[in-house]
Amino acid sequence: MDTRDGPTSAEEACFEAGIKFGSLYHQFAGTPVSPTSAPSLARAMEEAIENQPYCESVDVEVDEEEIAEAADDEYGYTELTGRFLTVDIAVDYQGVGVTARMAMEDGYPRMRLERVTRE
Amino acid sequence: MDTRDGPTSAEEACFEAGIKFGSLYHQFAGTPVSPTSAPSLARAMEEAIENQPYCESVDVEVDEEEIAEAADDEYGYTELTGRFLTVDIAVDYQGVGVTARMAMEDGYPRMRLERVTRE
Amino acid sequence: MDTRDGPTSAEEACFEAGIKFGSLYHQFAGTPVSPTSAPSLARAMEEAIENQPYCESVDVEVDEEEIAEAADDEYGYTELTGRFLTVDIAVDYQGVGVTARMAMEDGYPRMRLERVTRE
Amino acid sequence: MDTRDGPTSAEEACFEAGIKFGSLYHQFAGTPVSPTSAPSLARAMEEAIENQPYCESVDVEVDEEEIAEAADDEYGYTELTGRFLTVDIAVDYQGVGVTARMAMEDGYPRMRLERVTRE
Repeated sequence: MDTRDGPTSAEEACFEAGIKFGSLYHQFAGTPVSPTSAPSLARAMEEAIENQPYCESVDVEVDEEEIAEAADDEYGYTELTGRFLTVDIAVDYQGVGVTARMAMEDGYPRMRLERVTRE
Repeated sequence: MDTRDGPTSAEEACFEAGIKFGSLYHQFAGTPVSPTSAPSLARAMEEAIENQPYCESVDVEVDEEEIAEAADDEYGYTELTGRFLTVDIAVDYQGVGVTARMAMEDGYPRMRLERVTRE
Repeated sequence: MDTRDGPTSAEEACFEAGIKFGSLYHQFAGTPVSPTSAPSLARAMEEAIENQPYCESVDVEVDEEEIAEAADDEYGYTELTGRFLTVDIAVDYQGVGVTARMAMEDGYPRMRLERVTRE
Repeated sequence: MDTRDGPTSAEEACFEAGIKFGSLYHQFAGTPVSPTSAPSLARAMEEAIENQPYCESVDVEVDEEEIAEAADDEYGYTELTGRFLTVDIAVDYQGVGVTARMAMEDGYPRMRLERVTRE
């Protein structure tokens, strides 16, 4: 068994990237959203999570067509959930860069590490 | 005892106003916020809650100076909570207008009905 | 036009009931939930919202069968949303009792005042 | 420059651990909590996050004394925030075990990787 008490910088960077995705999703899931209000919500999500430590950039795309289809006929809005979102996050932790993405796969909003880059 | 099964339109309007305040507060409390990101968050809060039924307008003021003071020295942000917020909401339910406000009173974010107006 | 600056106690009671529903829904929507974890979540929702001012009781029923059907095949859970919930809340504000309910109607989680009772 | 497109299992495990912390914190921050309701909230937090993929265990301790001190004099409750929480999470991803902890450090709720263990 190989036990290392001290994680590597790359492992720390991946941990930090995970925190950003969990935060973004669970802070904003459930928000009332319509095609009209989607852009301001996307922008707020990006700027809120970019505040977090080691976060280089957050890019949120909200699928306004999907929202229009899902919106209640009477009131014209629905609740934010993963099926409307594609999110890219870049983290830099002590010289290790990580990019990760959340996107729908088989009906489940999957969060995936994409690249781990050491300078 | 006076039991009325059917609430009045004014009572319905006040119920609707309450829903908006509870929604706004508990959807967005805890969001990472800095003086820089406060305006986009305020705008998203307004537009999100304005989607809800019978909601005429939502005005959110975020106190950027208070946020700057509360922000972590190392990372420059804090979490959204009631002490940074003043919120005005106007609801119209079947001809009854209600305005209500959330603001700090004695260290507690108090939500108060202000006016109930029947045409 | 009839403008009253001072809302009645019944209107205040309805405003308070609305706050509880908005709070409960937007605090807990999006929580990971399975048939197994549904009871602890329901209990936490009840006890959390019962802390709020003027709140007499909160009763949350989570539909475990609906959750089982909606759960992801691979991971066995889904996210809490209105379609799994029936919520009854009782408020007492200065001698005015209000009962209200959230339940699904036509695919939308409708929150409705049920009774306004003055002693 | 060393670019690896495929992250290691240990990096994936750390990413998964981060997701759990971000989810837990931002789902439940802001919940009304009193010394009496703290245990049911802690239990719901544990069981909710244990639903997530690769999550072995979640242990939430809520500091009831701190909550009692912070509680509003009039209403007897406050809002859940990091200063009341110590959280331990264990993740297992394809044979790599990760343990991580959230606890207060210098007034900031710090999330830290503790151990990365490969069988």
